[in-house]
Amino acid sequence: MSKSSTATVRQSPVRDIATSAGGLRVHGETIAVQSAGRIDLHDVTDQVMSLVHGAGVREGFVNVWSMHTTCAVFINEHQRALVADMKRFLEEMVARDADWLHNDPQHSDCDRSNADSHLRAMLLGHSLTLQISGGEVVLGQWQRILVAELDGPRARTLRVQVMGVA
Amino acid sequence: MSKSSTATVRQSPVRDIATSAGGLRVHGETIAVQSAGRIDLHDVTDQVMSLVHGAGVREGFVNVWSMHTTCAVFINEHQRALVADMKRFLEEMVARDADWLHNDPQHSDCDRSNADSHLRAMLLGHSLTLQISGGEVVLGQWQRILVAELDGPRARTLRVQVMGVA
Amino acid sequence: MSKSSTATVRQSPVRDIATSAGGLRVHGETIAVQSAGRIDLHDVTDQVMSLVHGAGVREGFVNVWSMHTTCAVFINEHQRALVADMKRFLEEMVARDADWLHNDPQHSDCDRSNADSHLRAMLLGHSLTLQISGGEVVLGQWQRILVAELDGPRARTLRVQVMGVA
Repeated sequence: MSKSSTATVRQSPVRDIATSAGGLRVHGETIAVQSAGRIDLHDVTDQVMSLVHGAGVREGFVNVWSMHTTCAVFINEHQRALVADMKRFLEEMVARDADWLHNDPQHSDCDRSNADSHLRAMLLGHSLTLQISGGEVVLGQWQRILVAELDGPRARTLRVQVMGVA
Repeated sequence: MSKSSTATVRQSPVRDIATSAGGLRVHGETIAVQSAGRIDLHDVTDQVMSLVHGAGVREGFVNVWSMHTTCAVFINEHQRALVADMKRFLEEMVARDADWLHNDPQHSDCDRSNADSHLRAMLLGHSLTLQISGGEVVLGQWQRILVAELDGPRARTLRVQVMGVA
Repeated sequence: MSKSSTATVRQSPVRDIATSAGGLRVHGETIAVQSAGRIDLHDVTDQVMSLVHGAGVREGFVNVWSMHTTCAVFINEHQRALVADMKRFLEEMVARDADWLHNDPQHSDCDRSNADSHLRAMLLGHSLTLQISGGEVVLGQWQRILVAELDGPRARTLRVQVMGVA
């Protein structure tokens, strides 16, 4: 079982200063994620990078959007031990059984009893906007794009849209 | 009193893959929000969508920005029961009366005693960047753009800027 | 010792409605931040504004990205008293010594014992996307761009990328 974190490697370093001008190109696609547990973290960095490589944008932005209220997207290190800590922290920070109105049939027509999932997603956020430079996503060495399943297991969809100079 | 959540409906589904090129168009406007309580959540999805429909951008991004430190913007489901849960959670997570220095005239010239409002906003965030595809905002079925008043009641301003291919 | 917060001043107010079209310009640069404590907040608003002034973009977006997993970027008021409150809150919200697996050599090859730093960054976020209008960053009067060092003291790098109409 690996104790190490996944490193993010670019083929070429980000240039100190990069300026470009030209025609605008916008390209959008979806990425599918299948979660395995109720709370579950996935590293989608390689999928986003590969989509960016194919989108033909050299300098610009890429937005990664979770299409679900109880599925979040955020940046952190990807290491088995830290993933366990993040799951534990998310579980401890929001009590699952705290008489939430969203879980009470008298007040809510939702039958998933997932108020805690909504509250956790509220703290993590549902999207990221990253920079593209030299045709690659700008990320630090240990930064990975993580998807947090907060009410799984389920099939989830991310939409990824790239915009910039071709 | 409705137990249901507001659904987000597009006139046409997001296309699987959408690629566009062309001239860049940038359009910005403000949206006014009047809050009613000290902590108060507002659904501004329809206002943002309508602004995007009028902006004449088919593929691109839209940024929604709260112009205030104690007013946040985030994504979640909009249902009366869940809104009550979110308010309760925000209130429990940050103690209002915890000897914050920002509330102490010896250390601060702020007379609103709103340290808790600042700390809650720090967790939720002040802005969102969403995708536009096919002329519409890309949102999941239950995703709504929510504004969190954290030190109301007050008149608040959001700035919304659209950028993309006309 | 000042009790006041730093105000954000534009040379001209944001226009109510601003629409532009034209060629796309993308410009990226880095900003260096040297932190002094383990948890430490820095106001980089003036540096981001100055970079935007030099980038030659009149209407568009600017993205501010922390290149590190334990260094966050967010919006709040910059006042000495409130900064102390924010540091206290971050320290209280995540226990430093809670048997995190990321700090345990049996499970992790990280020797910084900084699980708490990762968890705090997860809540604050690593980036911001702001609007540019009239050549200036769109910010409310008390809004400042803050960098949160969460595992310092260290030399940190932000990447800032501007995209819009020249």
